[in-house]
Amino acid sequence: MNEPLTSYQALNAFCQNIFLTMGCSESDAQTATKVLLSADIRGVDSHGVARLSGYVRLWENNRINAMPNIQVVHETPSTAVVDGDGGLGLVVAPWAMDIAIKKAAVAGTGWVSVRNSNHYGIAGYHAMMALDNDMIGISMTNASPLVSPTFSLDRLLGTNPIAVAIPADKQPPFVADFATTTAANGKLEILQRVNKDAPEGWIQDAQGGISTNPNELKNGGALLPLGGDRDHGSHKGYCLGSIVDIFSAVLSGANYGPWVPPFVAFLPMPADPVGKGIGHFFGAMRIDAFRPADEFKTHMDNWITTFRNSRSVEGEKVLIPGDPERMMEQERLQNGVPVQAKVREDLIALAAKLGVKHPF
Amino acid sequence: MNEPLTSYQALNAFCQNIFLTMGCSESDAQTATKVLLSADIRGVDSHGVARLSGYVRLWENNRINAMPNIQVVHETPSTAVVDGDGGLGLVVAPWAMDIAIKKAAVAGTGWVSVRNSNHYGIAGYHAMMALDNDMIGISMTNASPLVSPTFSLDRLLGTNPIAVAIPADKQPPFVADFATTTAANGKLEILQRVNKDAPEGWIQDAQGGISTNPNELKNGGALLPLGGDRDHGSHKGYCLGSIVDIFSAVLSGANYGPWVPPFVAFLPMPADPVGKGIGHFFGAMRIDAFRPADEFKTHMDNWITTFRNSRSVEGEKVLIPGDPERMMEQERLQNGVPVQAKVREDLIALAAKLGVKHPF
Repeated sequence: MNEPLTSYQALNAFCQNIFLTMGCSESDAQTATKVLLSADIRGVDSHGVARLSGYVRLWENNRINAMPNIQVVHETPSTAVVDGDGGLGLVVAPWAMDIAIKKAAVAGTGWVSVRNSNHYGIAGYHAMMALDNDMIGISMTNASPLVSPTFSLDRLLGTNPIAVAIPADKQPPFVADFATTTAANGKLEILQRVNKDAPEGWIQDAQGGISTNPNELKNGGALLPLGGDRDHGSHKGYCLGSIVDIFSAVLSGANYGPWVPPFVAFLPMPADPVGKGIGHFFGAMRIDAFRPADEFKTHMDNWITTFRNSRSVEGEKVLIPGDPERMMEQERLQNGVPVQAKVREDLIALAAKLGVKHPF
Repeated sequence: MNEPLTSYQALNAFCQNIFLTMGCSESDAQTATKVLLSADIRGVDSHGVARLSGYVRLWENNRINAMPNIQVVHETPSTAVVDGDGGLGLVVAPWAMDIAIKKAAVAGTGWVSVRNSNHYGIAGYHAMMALDNDMIGISMTNASPLVSPTFSLDRLLGTNPIAVAIPADKQPPFVADFATTTAANGKLEILQRVNKDAPEGWIQDAQGGISTNPNELKNGGALLPLGGDRDHGSHKGYCLGSIVDIFSAVLSGANYGPWVPPFVAFLPMPADPVGKGIGHFFGAMRIDAFRPADEFKTHMDNWITTFRNSRSVEGEKVLIPGDPERMMEQERLQNGVPVQAKVREDLIALAAKLGVKHPF
């Protein structure tokens, strides 16, 4: 799969133009583009330009407010609830994470639950905003209901990712960013585009049986919580996805569980919403609210090198969370991003529809 | 396995006597017993009286200070670091969680990282302390290094559990409490006592190969992170276990990774400690720091009933985290606790050694 490479700069200009065409302000278009493309350059191909036409589709359906009035609607010294006013999650999320960071500067930690938002790109971007402030960053969001709890046939949860970014000293930061399912939906979308089967343990069919068909979700199937089945701890993945849903949406007043407004086109909008939009949850913890930051970061270096240098099974390396994405970022910023053929086709059609120049 | 039942009251008196014999104060002996037995009555047989002689062994090895001077050594409005002074984790943990709750009452949330502690019983007990205050409770701890990161042959993490307790209104609370491995070490200890194999995906042997031998850890094998293998997301379990380790120990100044002083007898004490004792991390979030508590709890009832009443695979029920333990608690408080034969033998020997009356 030697896809032609498109430069970061060219993708950047293209995405900004699309967001401007949607009616975003210049600064929001820049922010949304930076967040969206952080997925492509970090190698999370499912969450970057591949989703651009999805955001446009939501906007066309009047589900995205391009000029939102984002507001703090409730707060205490260490918490806030933010109403995203139906804006792009790509814009609402960094705004809310910034509040968490400001709270942490004063109170030691800051925790922000967000309602009335939309899909926010990769979870890791927002968590990593804390790093330059010598803080630990946390980011989570609920998402399209595509996941069945252990033993359930109904799709009640999203892939509900969790990201945690932790600074180190001479070592690069620890950045975990993962869906609370065996595999993220984006991974299925990639298999669909290249017509490949999924491993067993990722998906169940509409009757709760084993499936390897990456299109099974369109037939009423579901993604499985991390663990896959009960014997291998799927109830733990179900717990994690539930916690993300509750912190993001029941705390903020967003829609939760099966009421989450879907990003994917094949699901209808749920009737009788129980809240506003989708929900996110952000946290920032100042390191020196616990111990001196230099002490902590020196120990993080020791933690990281101990794990990275541990003995590995033959032919493999022990990685630190964030390693693969950071290496990818260096490569793609320099050489460009390989955009899959089907994604290119989709973006060329999008460009034609909106009258925007495309870089492909 | 129709084990004879021992009443909660009899176990309670027995454990209190053991802790008093160790030199604990009356009130600490009561607290330690309450925390320890909460495991037995909630059906987490691995973490209750089955571990009593383990605590005594640590005390005999001068690794537990029965009269600790537990202290806050650093704090901000929403954070604190607690030094447990080598006390029983069963006593240090509720003390620290109480600080988190008090911080949350003032600042909206409270976050406490603990060093210089020991094994703290079941994670869920401490998280549940928040419930009566209309708060969400969070509890995690690092533990004996028995888990290998994805692709590693070294044992660098504990089973590092996470517990999250969330109040509801008419429904019982949501209480998640799980090891970040496919299966907790306690589950292996139970299989060892009854001479049964473990399912594939729980354990690797010393060379990183598949094993079903529940005694494999004594041969240099390791527990596997939640997910089991890379294809099924073991890197996510590795992330979770790492986050617990860093929040509990690198933030507080406790030992982390392979330096965690082991609870299990078959591991030696690591040389050159990087901190003090083992570490825990606690959080409390006041619900009304986000939205009115009654509103939140009504939505939690809706969340819980929606999930519990969803369509299930034949012969199974969709459970809410905390359901099985709560049902077990009602039954065992009334009828007594079935203590396994090997555990009874061990406790009878312990009673003889310390000159304490036993209830078996």
